[in-house]
Parts: sequence; C-alpha cells; structure tokens
Amino acid sequence: MAVNGTNEETKKSRSVIELEKFDALFPSLVEDIKNIGMKDAHVALVMDKMQEVIEYNVPFGKKNRGMAVVLSFYQLAQNPTDDDIRRARILGWCIEFFQAFSLMVDDMLDSSITRRCKPCWYKRENVGLLAINDSYFLESAMYFLLKKHFRDQPYYVHLLELFHDITQLTVTGECLDLITSRPESKIDFTNFTIDRYNTIVKWKTAYYSFYLPVAMAMYMAGISDDESHNTAKSILLKMGHFFQVQDDYLDCFGAPEVIGKIGTDIQDNKCSWLVVQALQRVTPEQRQVLQENYAQNDEEKIEKVKKLYRDLNLSQVYQDYEEKSYQELMNLIEKSSGNLPKQMFIAFAMKIYKRKK
Amino acid sequence: MAVNGTNEETKKSRSVIELEKFDALFPSLVEDIKNIGMKDAHVALVMDKMQEVIEYNVPFGKKNRGMAVVLSFYQLAQNPTDDDIRRARILGWCIEFFQAFSLMVDDMLDSSITRRCKPCWYKRENVGLLAINDSYFLESAMYFLLKKHFRDQPYYVHLLELFHDITQLTVTGECLDLITSRPESKIDFTNFTIDRYNTIVKWKTAYYSFYLPVAMAMYMAGISDDESHNTAKSILLKMGHFFQVQDDYLDCFGAPEVIGKIGTDIQDNKCSWLVVQALQRVTPEQRQVLQENYAQNDEEKIEKVKKLYRDLNLSQVYQDYEEKSYQELMNLIEKSSGNLPKQMFIAFAMKIYKRKK
Repeated sequence: MAVNGTNEETKKSRSVIELEKFDALFPSLVEDIKNIGMKDAHVALVMDKMQEVIEYNVPFGKKNRGMAVVLSFYQLAQNPTDDDIRRARILGWCIEFFQAFSLMVDDMLDSSITRRCKPCWYKRENVGLLAINDSYFLESAMYFLLKKHFRDQPYYVHLLELFHDITQLTVTGECLDLITSRPESKIDFTNFTIDRYNTIVKWKTAYYSFYLPVAMAMYMAGISDDESHNTAKSILLKMGHFFQVQDDYLDCFGAPEVIGKIGTDIQDNKCSWLVVQALQRVTPEQRQVLQENYAQNDEEKIEKVKKLYRDLNLSQVYQDYEEKSYQELMNLIEKSSGNLPKQMFIAFAMKIYKRKK
Repeated sequence: MAVNGTNEETKKSRSVIELEKFDALFPSLVEDIKNIGMKDAHVALVMDKMQEVIEYNVPFGKKNRGMAVVLSFYQLAQNPTDDDIRRARILGWCIEFFQAFSLMVDDMLDSSITRRCKPCWYKRENVGLLAINDSYFLESAMYFLLKKHFRDQPYYVHLLELFHDITQLTVTGECLDLITSRPESKIDFTNFTIDRYNTIVKWKTAYYSFYLPVAMAMYMAGISDDESHNTAKSILLKMGHFFQVQDDYLDCFGAPEVIGKIGTDIQDNKCSWLVVQALQRVTPEQRQVLQENYAQNDEEKIEKVKKLYRDLNLSQVYQDYEEKSYQELMNLIEKSSGNLPKQMFIAFAMKIYKRKK
C-alpha cells in the first residue's frame, strides 16, 4: 500500500475540494424539500421541523458513499458537463439521505446511544418513536429529489428501481441480523456461523454502501448492461464485506470519540465478526465465559467478553484478515474489472482500508 | 339515497364476487415476494417471517382502497383484457400493502392496542420495535410487486411517482397530526382549529385513501393529463374529508367489536373532528371540563369527555354534517366530473356514507 507522498497529497487536496463542493450543494437541496409545503401555513410547520430532522441526521457522516458516486462518475463519464457533475453530487446526497434514514431506524432497533458523536435522533427530547415517521420522511425526500432533478434523464427509472431493490435487500439483511440476535434473553450461538455472518453483511451493508453508489454512477454514465453491473457487484460486495468486518472490529476496539459512536454489539447479542471468530477458537471453558457474559447490558460482563477477545488475540486475527482481504481485492480488481476502470475501485478501497473511524 | 332493491342486490352480489376474485389473487403475490430470497437458506428464514408479517397485516382490512382500484378501472377501461383486470387487482393489493405499513407505523405512534379486531402487530410477543423494520419490508415488497408486474407497462413510472408522492403527503400529514397532539402533557387547544384539522385530514388520509386508488386506475386506463387528475382529486379529497370525519366519530362512538379497534383519540390528545366541533360550542365551564379531562389515559376522564360530547349533541351535529356533505358531494360529481364517469365516484361514495365500521 506504499503510495508516493506527493501524489497522495495532491489526491488529498483534490478530494478535500471535491468534498467542499459536495457540501456546498446541500443547503439548496434542503430548500428544495422545504418548498414542498410552504404554501400552506400548517404544512410549513412540518417543513420547519423536517429541516431540523434533515440537518441533524444527513450531513455529518463521513460521506464516503455520497462522494463515491461523484468520484466514480468522474472515472466513468466521457466529458461530463457541469450539469452532469452537479447531478452526480445530488445523487451522492440521495445516498446520504438513504444512509440517514437507515441509521435512524438501526439505532432504534439496536438501542444505540450515540451516532456521529451526537445523541441518536430518537434519543433527543420530544423525539422518541416520532423518529419512525421522520425516517419515512427522509426516504420520501430522497425520492422527491430524484424526481425533481432526474425525471428527464434517460436513466431515471434505473435509479428508482435501484433504490427500491437496494432498500429491499437492506431491510431483509437488517431482519436477518435481528432474527439472529433475538431473543437476547436466550443465548444460542448455534446460528453464529461465518456463513450466516456473510449473508447478513452482504444484504444489510455491502449492497447499499458499496454497490449502490457505483451502480448509480454507472447508470448516469450510460452503463446499464447486466455484465458490467455484475462485474462491479462482485468487486464491491467483497469490499463491503471487509468494511463490515472492520466496523465490527471498531465497534469493540475503536475509540468512541474517534468512531463517533459507542459500540453495542456485545450487549445487543450481535452476530459480529469478532464473536464468530472467537467461537471458532475457544476452549470449552472459554465458550462458557462467552455464554455467561455475552448479550447483557452490564459493563463488567462486556469487559469479560472483551478480555476473552484479547486472550484469543483477535486483534492480530483481524490485522491478518485485513491484509489478506486487501490482497485478494487487488487481485480481483486486476483480473476481473472487465471494461470498468480499475482506478475507480482502487480509489474506493483506499478510503476503507486502514481507516480508524 | 333510495336505491331500487333488486339493483342493489345484484350490485351486492357482483361486488362480493369481485372481492372473492381479488382475495383469490393474494396468495400468489405472497409467493412472488417469498421467492425473492429462497435460494439462500438464511434469507429464506427472513422470508418465512415476512410471510407471517404480510399475512397478519395485509389481507384483513375492508379492502375498500384495493377494490376501488379494480372497480374504478372497470369504469374507465375500454374493453379491458383478463390480463388488464388481473393487473388492476395486483395494483389494488399494492395499495393494501401501502395501507398495511402505514397503519403499522400509525399504531406504534398512537400507542394503539387493537386493529382489525386483533392486537396491533407491534403489540405481539417478540415484535415490538421490530415492527419498524417490518413496515419497511412491506413498503419494499410493494415496489417489488410493481416492478415484477408493471415494468413493461407504459404507465409504470406514473405508478412509481404516484406512490412516492403520496407517501410524502401521507408522512407529512402524519407529522402534522403528531405535532398538533404533542406534547400530550401540555394541553393547548389553540391549534385545534377546523383549518388545521382540514389540512391534517387532506394530507394524512384523503390523498392515499381516495385519490390514490382512482389515480392508479386512471393511469392504467391511459388517463394521465393534469386536468383529469385535478378533477378527480377535487372530488376524491372531498370524499376523503368526510371519511375521516366519520372515522373520528366512530373512534369515539363506534362499537369496538364493529370498527375492529379501540379508539384512542381522546387520550392521545388528537385534533379530532369531535373536539374541534366541541370547542366551537362549549361554554367557558365546559371548556374547563375538556381542559381537565382531555389527553389523559384514564377511563373516568375519557368518559367525562364523551359525556360532554353527548351534552353538546355532537351525534346530531355529525348526522347533519353527513347529510350536508353527501349532498355537496353529489352536486360536485354532477357538475364537475368532466370527462370522468360519474358512476365511478358515486359507487366509491356509496361504500363510505352511512357505514358503521
């Protein structure tokens, strides 16, 4: 992963500038949405509230997914116009809306406390269950933006179907995740297999976080054939798999002030990569320790699980996995990217590997 | 509203047969959805669970909305084929899916207990907040059915945009409803105006329950011009307004075993038609009674509010309103239905007026 220093700096400043331009577009999208109901004084009250929902939940992530649309489009488009670039950015924001409503629901289901260094939306005063309706508003705002800015584009229906399909995959993956971890009161590790884990990750995270942004850029650039999309999918789902493994690792071993949230996988009885790895390595006595301490919201018990992970040297297991996964991914990109630009995939991968948050 | 007896009987048996055909299609749609993930043993678990979610929540309503698509299509289509009719029925089921996920969310937000004579879905054992994800699954299943059965039809994009638009209106109306009734701890009747009421009803209920089914049938029949849709909208939103007034009346005065749910408007501090009417008629002393007893989950207090409604003779006010609204609606249909068949609107209205559930 050695990269020439100067190139790296140039790349960084370019991506900072791109991110600034991306961010600069956001307020106009909020205005678009607010205008939906401003003619009616009563509905205007809702729109004021929804502005708060949007501004709290949408713009403060890492924006890797949103930026991936823009950066992939640069790699794919032949002579894009300023309007094209602007549309790619809007599409990038659409995926950030998608991410925002998915996380809002996720946080409620996982009883999470913080997200992006702030209290989760549902944890705020006077929000609670109203967050369910707010999440649906964010989803509908996304379709509103698509209609407003893309309905005249030849790939409009592709975009709508893509969001519908990916929503279904994500919701199905979320459900498998929840089924696997419930009921929390009854600890049953028999379902915590690597096979189950791989399925959850693919459906719940990899499709929307990795395939979706690149697929949108491909449709924008006029690439809609199944073969190209399958090629992109095979590479991006592998990248997404590594991303989730890393996310699971950071949930336990990352610093909350860096990752912006307090991990809850252990107490939530999650089929996390760490517990799956642990189960493959434990002695019968250690398995008993897991059995007695997993899935309970008790600091001492959580600490015992973390100690067990350390005893099993899972940090090293993780680092070895990261290295191996990176090599495999680069080989896959090298051999199987077909007509798609390798650099598009490599640039995306660079945002993910060795991240700390 | 005098109708010839024999005609009425023929009409009834026709509508029973139509409903049977509509119901007969349902299992095949459940199969369509289950097939999404049956190739993967893990995902198949989710699909088994989702079959239960669908079968509990989708098929047991009055199906007025679903049937309205079919019956409107009969009125609008020139020589429809069997395939056309089948598609109209599928579209009818799509709106029943829409209704199901909206009610699922509504019931959580209103802390409702029963729905369609059964416990609300979120009240079932081992469901709770998981119902949020289940509601999103139902929504995505609806788009899946649209894609599977309509993507080759020229009006496909109209249908998708219609569902997107109507979802946004409904969610916005739901939010206005919630804003108006919260916080429940602080009773403030200043927002309980007829103007606010009308806006909530239009956005939250009338669009999806009345305009949506007819609009879908219109698109299927090739009617997509703004003028026709605006004509239909003006009639159907008026019908929807009456429907919600009636729903509010039944929430308080309907028999739970008949309407299939236990009303919660009084304790939920809802801006219901009844409280708005009451506020227009109360003496200062009676207003004080409302102030002291509204918005509290206490049987005695709820009974005091109901007694006040009876003292103010709101049943009579309601019956007068029903009669007046019916006459106005018939006049509107007579004068302003343009090129659209009057009978389509009249038949829909007949399902609503004088209902007991």
